[in-house]
Amino acid sequence: MPEFRNNIATKEWVIIATERAKRPEDFAGRPANLAADSAAKCPFCPGKEAKTPKEVFAIREPGTAPDTSGWRVRVIPNAFPALSPTGELKREKSPAGFLKMNGVGIHDVIIESPDHEAIIATLPLAHVEDIYQAYRTRFSQLAADGRFESIILFKNHGQNAGTSLHHPHSQIVAMPVTPRAARDRVEIARSHFDEKGSCLYCDLIAAEKQEEARVILETDNFSAFTPFASRVPFEIWVLPKKHSSNFETISVELSRELAGVMQSVLQKLHRVLHNPDFNYAIYSAPCREHDLEYFHWNLKIFPRVTSQAGFEVGSGMMINTVIPEAAAKYLREGEKK
Amino acid sequence: MPEFRNNIATKEWVIIATERAKRPEDFAGRPANLAADSAAKCPFCPGKEAKTPKEVFAIREPGTAPDTSGWRVRVIPNAFPALSPTGELKREKSPAGFLKMNGVGIHDVIIESPDHEAIIATLPLAHVEDIYQAYRTRFSQLAADGRFESIILFKNHGQNAGTSLHHPHSQIVAMPVTPRAARDRVEIARSHFDEKGSCLYCDLIAAEKQEEARVILETDNFSAFTPFASRVPFEIWVLPKKHSSNFETISVELSRELAGVMQSVLQKLHRVLHNPDFNYAIYSAPCREHDLEYFHWNLKIFPRVTSQAGFEVGSGMMINTVIPEAAAKYLREGEKK
Repeated sequence: MPEFRNNIATKEWVIIATERAKRPEDFAGRPANLAADSAAKCPFCPGKEAKTPKEVFAIREPGTAPDTSGWRVRVIPNAFPALSPTGELKREKSPAGFLKMNGVGIHDVIIESPDHEAIIATLPLAHVEDIYQAYRTRFSQLAADGRFESIILFKNHGQNAGTSLHHPHSQIVAMPVTPRAARDRVEIARSHFDEKGSCLYCDLIAAEKQEEARVILETDNFSAFTPFASRVPFEIWVLPKKHSSNFETISVELSRELAGVMQSVLQKLHRVLHNPDFNYAIYSAPCREHDLEYFHWNLKIFPRVTSQAGFEVGSGMMINTVIPEAAAKYLREGEKK
Repeated sequence: MPEFRNNIATKEWVIIATERAKRPEDFAGRPANLAADSAAKCPFCPGKEAKTPKEVFAIREPGTAPDTSGWRVRVIPNAFPALSPTGELKREKSPAGFLKMNGVGIHDVIIESPDHEAIIATLPLAHVEDIYQAYRTRFSQLAADGRFESIILFKNHGQNAGTSLHHPHSQIVAMPVTPRAARDRVEIARSHFDEKGSCLYCDLIAAEKQEEARVILETDNFSAFTPFASRVPFEIWVLPKKHSSNFETISVELSRELAGVMQSVLQKLHRVLHNPDFNYAIYSAPCREHDLEYFHWNLKIFPRVTSQAGFEVGSGMMINTVIPEAAAKYLREGEKK
């Protein structure tokens, strides 16, 4: 059983992933380079459905049976989950005062396409809409589960972004604890609301619109921009313009529009940075809180074109060598010929 | 002039390093692999002193002149600083509400040895003591400067740790702002003190001693252990046992003992992980606060044997696949033959 452990000096939870545990001696020497794994060995390719955990959701061709081919997007439990799907929640404090908790949670994989080489930037838009439909469905199922405090949906694209399988996929993790950073975000937004009487993120969208220089893309319902204090080069935030605190309440129509916005933004990144590695993540209000006036769900894209050195690791403060206004201009206008 | 920019939604400061600025198009394609640069081209090797910025401190053979050979440890301003050493501090809020500040600060390099290939694990102990003596001297000079709120001293060892020059060196940055993570650490320690009437870190040292399993090394004045909720495999914290909030007040004797502890701990890492890449950083109380009962300076070592994927980047919560007790045992006992 994995464990959540709490650091007394930082109040951060860490998952000690015993199910994936490595022996200490496995870390001697350089980490092996992950070969771009071949479709032949890929567990996510069609035809291997019987070898994966049973699907929990799929968008499939009419008449095809679960755990057979014929799916367009398929959600399955992670075969090597960071958290255990069964077991009782139990907080425990050692006599010396260290706090831990059973590592209960859900860790699913959203296989985005049967095509081993597909990427969101170049898939047909209707397929990207299916992916976001799967995000919406699975996110709302887990939010309704009742056992969890927080959910994070994220994607690793490329080896520098930490992916271990080449086949395009996203992941969703539901946890009985709230990461300290998530709690911080909510608290900051709450203080802003207390002080100004308005949603911090609604105000941010308006401020970015006013300054204009960092806006990459705007549709009826979404705004995408490089934040004023971008942590990394080409960081992009995507926010719904209409206030909404919980991603799980997104409508089918809005999730379609979001799919289009994300495809467009990822196309821009793909074009100017030549298919860079990236992570993205969806941030929503804590699962047990709804219709919050002061929090606003959002999606953040972090290209992995630089790495953190001791200053960043030590201080938690980033040094960004690309001016966010220049990054936005470059993304909007594309590469100069 | 670099800028500090504040993120309204996270309250984090980011350094937008215009002096080091890259053009957006420099990020197209994969980052180039840093070749292990040769001593012949190295700006930190002896004989190149005239080509670097003028030294601000050095430990040298008697009778040798500044900015000539004969040094054992040499501190110079970074030739490509993240912050500008001159200029007036100025906070500025844009009409739309974005907060920034001039990127004024000190960014020095501590060249640890004339030997291009030296590493702390295998240097003579007397030389490691010189390095820590230089840390102590330069840290206290900057703490006394009066313009700065926070100082961080850190080291990058190896390419995965973000080093750009092979020659052994550490860095020290003094800033007019406090990183949010640093403020958090102080606030958490203050709450602990308010509630319990004791220093969080003193209590932590006692708790680790009581549980014993994670202690790697203890001397008269220092304790080194893998924290209960280690964020990364083989993370190590080194703390002075006698309460002290500000690193800059460390005595010559204690800095010698610390050098010995660090060499011993880094030797253990070097032996069992085969010279792994790592960062370490020294955390001290804010420069303008002294003799705090509730804060305790500390040194943290982060081996860079894993990389962060979307879950960690997105949630800020780490997944650690090595049990801290197993890591400590392995470090204490060494590799099994």
